[in-house]
Amino acid sequence: MRIVLLGTGNLATRLGIALHTRNAEIVQVYGRAESKASHLAKLLGCSFTCYKEEIIDETDIYILTVSDEAINEVLSGLSISHQLVVHTAGSVPMDVLAAFSKNIGVIYPLQTLSQNREIDFEDVPICIEANTNANLEKLKELAGLLSERVVTIDSAKRRQLHLAAVFVCNFVNHFYTIGEKLLQDAQLDFDLLKPLILETANKAMQFSPIEVQTGPATRGDEHVIGQHLKMLAQHPEWQKLYELVSEDIRSHRLEDPLRQLVKQDGKNDIK
Amino acid sequence: MRIVLLGTGNLATRLGIALHTRNAEIVQVYGRAESKASHLAKLLGCSFTCYKEEIIDETDIYILTVSDEAINEVLSGLSISHQLVVHTAGSVPMDVLAAFSKNIGVIYPLQTLSQNREIDFEDVPICIEANTNANLEKLKELAGLLSERVVTIDSAKRRQLHLAAVFVCNFVNHFYTIGEKLLQDAQLDFDLLKPLILETANKAMQFSPIEVQTGPATRGDEHVIGQHLKMLAQHPEWQKLYELVSEDIRSHRLEDPLRQLVKQDGKNDIK
Repeated sequence: MRIVLLGTGNLATRLGIALHTRNAEIVQVYGRAESKASHLAKLLGCSFTCYKEEIIDETDIYILTVSDEAINEVLSGLSISHQLVVHTAGSVPMDVLAAFSKNIGVIYPLQTLSQNREIDFEDVPICIEANTNANLEKLKELAGLLSERVVTIDSAKRRQLHLAAVFVCNFVNHFYTIGEKLLQDAQLDFDLLKPLILETANKAMQFSPIEVQTGPATRGDEHVIGQHLKMLAQHPEWQKLYELVSEDIRSHRLEDPLRQLVKQDGKNDIK
Repeated sequence: MRIVLLGTGNLATRLGIALHTRNAEIVQVYGRAESKASHLAKLLGCSFTCYKEEIIDETDIYILTVSDEAINEVLSGLSISHQLVVHTAGSVPMDVLAAFSKNIGVIYPLQTLSQNREIDFEDVPICIEANTNANLEKLKELAGLLSERVVTIDSAKRRQLHLAAVFVCNFVNHFYTIGEKLLQDAQLDFDLLKPLILETANKAMQFSPIEVQTGPATRGDEHVIGQHLKMLAQHPEWQKLYELVSEDIRSHRLEDPLRQLVKQDGKNDIK
């Protein structure tokens, strides 16, 4: 399967390298910035272009890794006949591709990618979707090169997955940022929080998160909550967040007899 | 060093077991619920009591693991002379103990503890504080049995650390809960999010979180943000949270030239 990669960002780089090392045949990279396109092409041992007119049509599949807004713009310049065109976006329906090809699909790796951090796709869920069974088989094969967790998910479910991912990844990472800044305020090292961050994530591997929720809001410890809100007086936006999240934790907490017993009898946890 | 454990919750259990397996001498457990006190005493090979009058005074240290509100109540019944009295709470100043003993301190293990999940204290930062150097040395010795990361931190800094811990642990775990519920709404398995949760936490081990923030808010992708807010119409409290956190991410994002270049040129990440 000959592949043309459209885009040169983090996803193009990570996906391209992963496919290349698994012997997929990437024939060309397209990107507007020559330095990035040539760099990625070198890594993948293929040609590159910065001009839409030069994107080759002798390929089996175009993989779009450009930003959501750029999808239409890039595709409008291509002469597509039989080729399979797929995008990689969480929140873009597959059907936006229908105007450009009769063979369309999506490959959405559910992971957060950053510069300077390598990623092993092996465990990463790759969500695929296609408009025909034949195309779906092709994408299964391609995604199967990357990961052992290939799942077929339609556009509506993928969008919901993306929304959930924003909470458990992007928003969580922002709370790490808040934690780091609160520690800086007290001249404390962010390293102190790292075992706690890891353990919190590891607990979610084993338990449903609601079952292992700890902290002042779950315990109903109004005294500590009041103290924390006062301490956040210099950061009104975090104060508001603290209030909202605590309120939401309270309204969702499990009212099981065991938790009640623990609450009466002693300390449920450190927080 | 002879130890009396006051409290029988998760912290008492985890701390007691860890100290016991490192050959600390726990002589008694006190807890109001007989079943819990006797169970923990059995695990620790010591006696127990449910009556304050029976708490023994032939000890070197009392470790309080009861809830914040119960500290005064438990201590008011004790006849303390020379013994060191320490509590284990993040947000309670050491000085609340001054009314009960001339030897006081704090041992605060910065970790989230749950039933049914064992914890290795080795990497857990143990924050200690004491009112004299001699008491601090005693606590260093005791905490050193548990962990290689013993740090001396005063009450004000410990309170700030606790506040930060609420964000990076309790609030983060609540976002895992929201993620799980959003997936349930779409009949998707929470397992799909697990590699993302772990990778997000692991990235924070290596980078300052603000440097690796990804997602629609950092990218300034108003289209996806608008879509997500619409999708949350059934959950107005999460919609409000989504708005607030996104706004806060936007106001904190790093405006470095590299990020700008990536934004113009292609896709920064999958989210």
